[in-house]
Amino acid sequence: MEGSSQHTPWIKKVIPELVPPSLQDNTADVDRLLKGLKKTLGTQRVLLDFSLAKAVPHALRQYEYDVQATLFQDSEGWHLIGLEPRTADGSLYALAVDLGSSTVVLRLMDLITTETLEERSFHNPQIQIGTDILTRIHFAGQKGGLEKLRSLLIERLNQEIQSLADQKAIPVRAIMGMCAAGNTAMTHFFLGLDPYWICREPYIPAINKPDLIKAGELGLCIHPEAPVLVFPNVGSYLGGDLIAGVLACGMTKTEHIAFLVDVGTNAEVVIGNSDWLMGCAGAAGPALEGGVAGMGMMAAPGVIDKVEIDPHTLQFKIGTIEGKPPVGICGSGLIDLVAQLFLAGMIDLRGKFVAEKCGTRLVETDGVRQLVVVPPEASGTGEALTLSQPDIDALIRSKAAMYTILTTVAKTVNISFQEVSKFYVAGTFGAYIDPRSAIVLGMIPDLPLETYIPLGNSSIEGATMALLSAEAREEISRIRDQVTYLELNVNQEFMNLFSAAKFIPHTDRTLFPSVKGREE
Amino acid sequence: MEGSSQHTPWIKKVIPELVPPSLQDNTADVDRLLKGLKKTLGTQRVLLDFSLAKAVPHALRQYEYDVQATLFQDSEGWHLIGLEPRTADGSLYALAVDLGSSTVVLRLMDLITTETLEERSFHNPQIQIGTDILTRIHFAGQKGGLEKLRSLLIERLNQEIQSLADQKAIPVRAIMGMCAAGNTAMTHFFLGLDPYWICREPYIPAINKPDLIKAGELGLCIHPEAPVLVFPNVGSYLGGDLIAGVLACGMTKTEHIAFLVDVGTNAEVVIGNSDWLMGCAGAAGPALEGGVAGMGMMAAPGVIDKVEIDPHTLQFKIGTIEGKPPVGICGSGLIDLVAQLFLAGMIDLRGKFVAEKCGTRLVETDGVRQLVVVPPEASGTGEALTLSQPDIDALIRSKAAMYTILTTVAKTVNISFQEVSKFYVAGTFGAYIDPRSAIVLGMIPDLPLETYIPLGNSSIEGATMALLSAEAREEISRIRDQVTYLELNVNQEFMNLFSAAKFIPHTDRTLFPSVKGREE
Repeated sequence: MEGSSQHTPWIKKVIPELVPPSLQDNTADVDRLLKGLKKTLGTQRVLLDFSLAKAVPHALRQYEYDVQATLFQDSEGWHLIGLEPRTADGSLYALAVDLGSSTVVLRLMDLITTETLEERSFHNPQIQIGTDILTRIHFAGQKGGLEKLRSLLIERLNQEIQSLADQKAIPVRAIMGMCAAGNTAMTHFFLGLDPYWICREPYIPAINKPDLIKAGELGLCIHPEAPVLVFPNVGSYLGGDLIAGVLACGMTKTEHIAFLVDVGTNAEVVIGNSDWLMGCAGAAGPALEGGVAGMGMMAAPGVIDKVEIDPHTLQFKIGTIEGKPPVGICGSGLIDLVAQLFLAGMIDLRGKFVAEKCGTRLVETDGVRQLVVVPPEASGTGEALTLSQPDIDALIRSKAAMYTILTTVAKTVNISFQEVSKFYVAGTFGAYIDPRSAIVLGMIPDLPLETYIPLGNSSIEGATMALLSAEAREEISRIRDQVTYLELNVNQEFMNLFSAAKFIPHTDRTLFPSVKGREE
Repeated sequence: MEGSSQHTPWIKKVIPELVPPSLQDNTADVDRLLKGLKKTLGTQRVLLDFSLAKAVPHALRQYEYDVQATLFQDSEGWHLIGLEPRTADGSLYALAVDLGSSTVVLRLMDLITTETLEERSFHNPQIQIGTDILTRIHFAGQKGGLEKLRSLLIERLNQEIQSLADQKAIPVRAIMGMCAAGNTAMTHFFLGLDPYWICREPYIPAINKPDLIKAGELGLCIHPEAPVLVFPNVGSYLGGDLIAGVLACGMTKTEHIAFLVDVGTNAEVVIGNSDWLMGCAGAAGPALEGGVAGMGMMAAPGVIDKVEIDPHTLQFKIGTIEGKPPVGICGSGLIDLVAQLFLAGMIDLRGKFVAEKCGTRLVETDGVRQLVVVPPEASGTGEALTLSQPDIDALIRSKAAMYTILTTVAKTVNISFQEVSKFYVAGTFGAYIDPRSAIVLGMIPDLPLETYIPLGNSSIEGATMALLSAEAREEISRIRDQVTYLELNVNQEFMNLFSAAKFIPHTDRTLFPSVKGREE
C-alpha cells in the first residue's frame, strides 16, 4: 500500500507565542491569541467559533497567557478548538471508523506518535432493524425511523468509544478528531440524512461531500468541537468505503492501471490510475457474502472457508475457521466449494448437478436437489450441511454479475484485462477468497494470481490515513472528483454480457485459458 | 458624507441554475445546489452549514428544483442561509442597530431597494441597572449579572424587532441580516462577553473583531442563520460606534486631515485621513452630557438648549426644546449658558461667579453658590432652575479634558489645528452644540465655524452603510486596523496640558483669538 508516505497533520497542538497585555499593547484577548497562533502556524487564516471566543479571555488569564492550543485545518484555514495550560499533557487522540453495514470498526489513534493504540469492532446495531441496507432505508422512511437508525448507531458508537477511552485511561474529550468511511447509505444514517432517494431512480444521495462536521452536531461523545471527517461518495452505490479503498491501495499514485473491487450484495468497482478513474456499482446479489445459501454464514469459528475435492476419488477435504467442526459456509468457502465441484465434474458449465458424479451425496428434498457437503455425523450442528441447486444458481448469477460489471467498465474505458497490473480486492471477502477458485468460476478475469491483492479492511485503513495526513485528505477529494461514474442500470450492453457470463467459467472459453475443467 | 457611493450587496438572493437529477447526472442534492449557486455567483466558494444541508434534499424536491436562495458573503466565501421556491416573494430585509448605552436605535432596511422602511429608538433597558457604563460593568461581575444585562437588551430588542416587523407586515424570519455598532462595553453586553477587563488596567477587551455571528447564537428573533455584523473596536474606550463614525463621515476617503470627536462621559477622538489614523479616548466627565449639573437632563421637551445673555442688560434669553416652559438643561444648553456667563463677565476665567455682575441671581444654599437661571415663576417645574459653582467647575474640568485630548493627539501626530480641514462632531451632543459657545469655553480649537460639522447619529449611519455594502464592510476592517491607539493614561504631558486648559478659554489666549470676553 502506497500513498501514506507524507504525514502533514491536519489536527495538531501548538504553543503560540503570547505576550501578556500591557498599556503599550491593548490588543484584545481573542485577537491576541489568534495573532500568536497565526505567527506560530505561519498563516493568516486562524479562525474560531464565537462560542469558543467567549471562553478565551478567562482561559488565557487562568493560564497566564502560557497555553497550548488544539487546532484543525480545512480549506478555510486553521480552526482553534481547544485551549489548555502549556503545562498540560500534550497528548492528542483521534478515531478512525469503518461504518460497515454489518460490522463497525473503531481504531483509536495517537495523533502525536501516529500509532494505533487499540482497535475494536462490533456488529452494527442497525442489524436489528434489517441485515440488508434496503430494509433499513425503507425503515428510515417510517415515522421516527431515520432517527432510530441514527441513534442506534451513535449510541453504540458512544458506548464503545467510552469503553475504549476507559481502557486506555483517556478522557473522551481528549479525542479531538474522527474520520469515518462507509457506504453511502451508512454515511446517511450516521449523519441523520434522509436516504429515501438513494434507492429510487435516479438514485441521488442527499450529499456527496459531507467533509467536516463537528462531533457535537452528530451527538458523538468525543470533544464536541472535534472535526469529524466523513468520506465523500460518488453516488448512491459508490460510497466512501470505496474511496477509502482507492486511497488505501494507492492505485492513484501510479500510472499502471489497477482495478479495485469491493464485493458484497453490491459489487463496487473502480478502475484507473493517477490520471483517470472510472467507477461503477451493480447488484451482485447476496450469494457472494454467503448470506443466501442454506448453510451460508458470516465468517466465524467452524465456518467452512476452504474446500478441496479430489478429482479422482471425489473425496471432500473441508477446512473451517479455527478448525472447529463445520457449522456453515462463508462466501469465500462457497466459491471454493462450487469451483471444486465444477473441476470435479460434479456440476456442469451451467452449474447444474451432474447426478452420476455426485452419487449418493445428491439428495432431493421437497423437489429441490441438494448436495450433502458435510454429513450429519461430521457436522458441528448435528445436521447435514447441504448445498442446493438454487444456492448454486444464485452464486452463478452473482458471479456473472460481477464479471459483467468488470467487463463493462473495462470496455467503457477501452482497456483489456491484460493491461491491468493490479487487481485489489477489498473487504472480508477479499481477504479470504482464493483467486484461483474465483477464476475457475469465471467471476474474475483469468490473470496471473499475483495480480490479485487482498486489501483487508481498506475502509479503516483509508480512514486512518485521512486522519493522519492532510495530503491524504486532499487526495480523497481529488479521487472523488476524478471518478467518472458509469451507470449500469442504463447500460444497453450489460444484459447481453450478463447472459454470456452465466456459464462456468464463461461461454467464451478463450477468456479463461487457465481453467481446464472435467467437463471437457 | 462620502464613502457610500459603492453598493455591492453582501447579503442577497439569487436564483441558481438547477437541472433536476437524472441517471445521466447523479450529483447529490446538496452538491447540485452548491454547483448551481457557484455557477450563478461566479465563485468557487459557496458553503452551507451541515444543519442546513440536512434540509436541502426535501426542500429541492418540494420546490421541484426551482428555487431562490439567500446567501451572505464573508472572507470564506458565500454562505447559503435560506432556500425558498422561486415563486416566493423576493423581498429581503435587514436591520441596522445603534447600540447606544442610553438609547438604542433600530433601522429596518429593504436590502433590495436599499431604502429605510422604518426607524425607531428606545431607552436602553440596561439603564435600570445603571445609567453609566461602569456601574453596568461592575454589575456584570456579579453572579448572573452579565446574563441579566445581555437578556435585558436582547429581549427588548426582540420585542421592538417583532413590533417593527408587525407594523410593516413582515415575518421576522424574513429579516436576514443585522449590523450593530456600539461602544466596546455595549458590544460586550450584546454578545454576552465578559467586560471585566475593559475597565481594569491595561483595559483589554475580550475581542476586537467579532465580525459575523449567527443571529440564532445571539438569541435574536430574526432568521436564526442571519449574519449579525458587529462593529470592531480599537480598544476598551475606542469602540465600534466611533469606527461607524469614521466610516459615516468619510474622513478616510480624502487626503485632507479631519478630526472626529464623539463627546460623552468619555471623549473619543480620531484624527487622520486616507493614509493614517490615530485615535484616543479619555474621561471627559459626565458634565458634557448634562448628566451632572443640578438641573442637567437629557434632551426632551422643555429642556434648555439655547441661552443668550445680553452683555449690557444681563438679561437672559432662554430657548427650550419645543418652546415648552424650562424644566432642565442639556449638555449643549449648558455650554451655551456658561459661555454666555463668561462673555457677560458673570464668571471669570477660572469659571468662578463674579458677584457684582451676577447680582440678585446669585444665591447661596448650604454654603454653595448658585446662579438662578430661571426663576420659579418662569420654570416648568414651579421651582427655580439653578447652576451651582460645582456644576461650572465640573464643566470646566470636562472641557479642559476635551481640549487636552485634542491637543495631545494633534501634538502626537505633529499636526497643528490649523491643518485640520474638517472637525466632525458625532452624537446628540454634536447635533445640538453651538461651536461658537464651545470655542468661547476653550473646549474645541478656535477654527472657522464651517470647519465644525455635526454628524448626528453616525453609529446608525455607519451601521446602515456596512449593512448595504461589501466595500463599506471592508472599509470598517481597514479603519480598525489602521487606527494607532494613543494611550492617554500613560501620557506624561497630559496632566501639564490639562492644567493649562482649565481656564476660559485657556491660559494661552493666543490660541483663541476670536474670543473676546468682558473680563479683559
